[in-house]
Amino acid sequence: MITQAAALIERVRTSNPLIHHITNYVTVNDCANITLAIGASPIMADALAEAADIAAMAQAVVLNMGTLNERTIPAMLAAGAAANRAGIPVVLDPVGAGASPLRGDTARQILDAVALTVLRGNSSEIRFMAGLSSSTKGVDASDSDLASDSDAMAVAKAAAQKLGCTVVITGPVDTVSNGVHGWRIANGHPMLARLTGTGCMCSSLIGSFCGAAPDAPLTACIAALLTEGIAGEIAYEQAGAQGTGSFRVAFHDAVSRMTADTLVGRAKLYEA
Amino acid sequence: MITQAAALIERVRTSNPLIHHITNYVTVNDCANITLAIGASPIMADALAEAADIAAMAQAVVLNMGTLNERTIPAMLAAGAAANRAGIPVVLDPVGAGASPLRGDTARQILDAVALTVLRGNSSEIRFMAGLSSSTKGVDASDSDLASDSDAMAVAKAAAQKLGCTVVITGPVDTVSNGVHGWRIANGHPMLARLTGTGCMCSSLIGSFCGAAPDAPLTACIAALLTEGIAGEIAYEQAGAQGTGSFRVAFHDAVSRMTADTLVGRAKLYEA
Amino acid sequence: MITQAAALIERVRTSNPLIHHITNYVTVNDCANITLAIGASPIMADALAEAADIAAMAQAVVLNMGTLNERTIPAMLAAGAAANRAGIPVVLDPVGAGASPLRGDTARQILDAVALTVLRGNSSEIRFMAGLSSSTKGVDASDSDLASDSDAMAVAKAAAQKLGCTVVITGPVDTVSNGVHGWRIANGHPMLARLTGTGCMCSSLIGSFCGAAPDAPLTACIAALLTEGIAGEIAYEQAGAQGTGSFRVAFHDAVSRMTADTLVGRAKLYEA
Repeated sequence: MITQAAALIERVRTSNPLIHHITNYVTVNDCANITLAIGASPIMADALAEAADIAAMAQAVVLNMGTLNERTIPAMLAAGAAANRAGIPVVLDPVGAGASPLRGDTARQILDAVALTVLRGNSSEIRFMAGLSSSTKGVDASDSDLASDSDAMAVAKAAAQKLGCTVVITGPVDTVSNGVHGWRIANGHPMLARLTGTGCMCSSLIGSFCGAAPDAPLTACIAALLTEGIAGEIAYEQAGAQGTGSFRVAFHDAVSRMTADTLVGRAKLYEA
Repeated sequence: MITQAAALIERVRTSNPLIHHITNYVTVNDCANITLAIGASPIMADALAEAADIAAMAQAVVLNMGTLNERTIPAMLAAGAAANRAGIPVVLDPVGAGASPLRGDTARQILDAVALTVLRGNSSEIRFMAGLSSSTKGVDASDSDLASDSDAMAVAKAAAQKLGCTVVITGPVDTVSNGVHGWRIANGHPMLARLTGTGCMCSSLIGSFCGAAPDAPLTACIAALLTEGIAGEIAYEQAGAQGTGSFRVAFHDAVSRMTADTLVGRAKLYEA
Repeated sequence: MITQAAALIERVRTSNPLIHHITNYVTVNDCANITLAIGASPIMADALAEAADIAAMAQAVVLNMGTLNERTIPAMLAAGAAANRAGIPVVLDPVGAGASPLRGDTARQILDAVALTVLRGNSSEIRFMAGLSSSTKGVDASDSDLASDSDAMAVAKAAAQKLGCTVVITGPVDTVSNGVHGWRIANGHPMLARLTGTGCMCSSLIGSFCGAAPDAPLTACIAALLTEGIAGEIAYEQAGAQGTGSFRVAFHDAVSRMTADTLVGRAKLYEA
């Protein structure tokens, strides 16, 4: 698996997939830059009048619920449906699902209308999406949900089976399952939690890898999680002591310079 | 005062307050990252359909008028009202108040509907909000208003009494008053004016400190102003000669590494 | 020409023009910071209720189609019309023109309603705007359009004559023409294409220089293109090997420290 995942780095860089994002305005610049850093091309277009047109020319669609509004929700539904028609992957990042009725309702609307390829969230968000009990605090995973992280694999597998897609739960250890197979990625650094947008960027990386490998979403997710986690480790080694500003710059540097060898050499990847 | 203000740094980091922002799309990423850097948690949610829900789960609300539109104005009013009901602090950053009728009208609507805890702006904005003469140039303080900065304390005190909240006027020297007491903070560096979002980030820091110390807004404002000003000085020392890009990174670094000792050791804090 | 272009750097810094942007939410922070870095003042205001008011107090208006929506399109038309009435320059960045009917229609609406001073885009976008054949891929120039870059000057001149404004085509070599005179700028570095927002920032620089030299748009464009290209070279020399995050920081540094001497010393400027 690690060889296949690592090989996708080169595939992203040579195929340069166009990744359509309908995402939040907080971290959208980070998402665009990380998509470029890994070798894909970002396009952000959230008007209902063009969402389907843009999705139809892309190689993957990323829907991110970070700053929903009544204008972008129908655009997400239209882009997701267009992606389904075109047969390209759809990644959903249900930011803060459970934090408000609007987010819960929107998440359910998307699940009803769009066949997802990958669902990525923290443990609170994925529990909510799968109908399991959770206590969301804002957009970060709640402590009680993190405390129960030991059963993250059971949650991921159950959610994957229920929702019919690959499910990623990010946290101190990342978990991914397609309902049959499950993997854990233990790379990363706690300092990633001190930056905004690391979850959103992870979803953009998943979209980028899925765009290059539309038939292998599990492998694409593993490649993305390894890239993010290992880039976090490298960034901490190079700049962590300086503070969050330098760490952020070094994180982008590390993603832009990531190689298959680095992924293979540093991967902490375990089959569950 | 300096001891109490400096002690709030630790209180933010241990209580990790959730700070709900309805803010502009220009500097929202800076606001999220600076909120994380000081130890609080940001959430940005500006749909009317969830603004009150999110405010009700937060420890403070920051309303920033940088890029108003007809969609976000009612959301600001709803979030402010929900914060009042929940008894949590509300910080208003009246960006460009006076620059257009829309901004003036919105500022008045917020003043009418929401009991503010803190109002933070440059001298032009605060003069406008307090009904004193001003000549706004875009979103920066006009030179004529800056020239009259020597009476900033009188303006801050009068505005605080009139509006019933703590008032912060930022500029080469920062001024804060709750209508009774007044303080000046002479930390900072001119290079801060060469970055976008330093005012917005100051308001986010005020929101973060108020979220951790809801009963001590004056102290919270002083802690925020010292943090911003001293981080600006440290950033200039470390990276100012390299240019604005490096200065910005160093500013985030300095906020993320700020300690009570650094605040006490470098504070230029004067009671008025 | 190089002397006149280089002299504009000082003129921007002393006149500090206010540049009104109605732009996309992906790169808006980059645009604000680059406007400050070169010495102008940014203001971003996209509500129809204030777009004309803000434009009327500015020294130039930049309209950027990166993330259009039904709310911002009428604001762009209103700001453009107000700029025309006030006699200040209008710069249009037709991001992704041709990528969707919405973008094509909006571009035509702006051309019909607003007298442009400068139109800046990649080769695909300018071909589309001038009614020449093109194959747009997302927001980046298509390979087939780049392959025909040798006739970029013919396209720029034809577009300038047809549209009655100065036209800039950015790419590996930048081309600018006012329909009579034409210049090529061969500065820059391929790594600029690995950052989001370099095109948008170029348009902001053009707006900044036009705001300081409203009667000399051709010279202003050349100054902006030299600034961007040379800053890209310097950034690569200083930080390119570290990755895209460091390169981005160094790019902002280089713009903020740009001098007339550096422009003159490094310019690769050729009359066509």
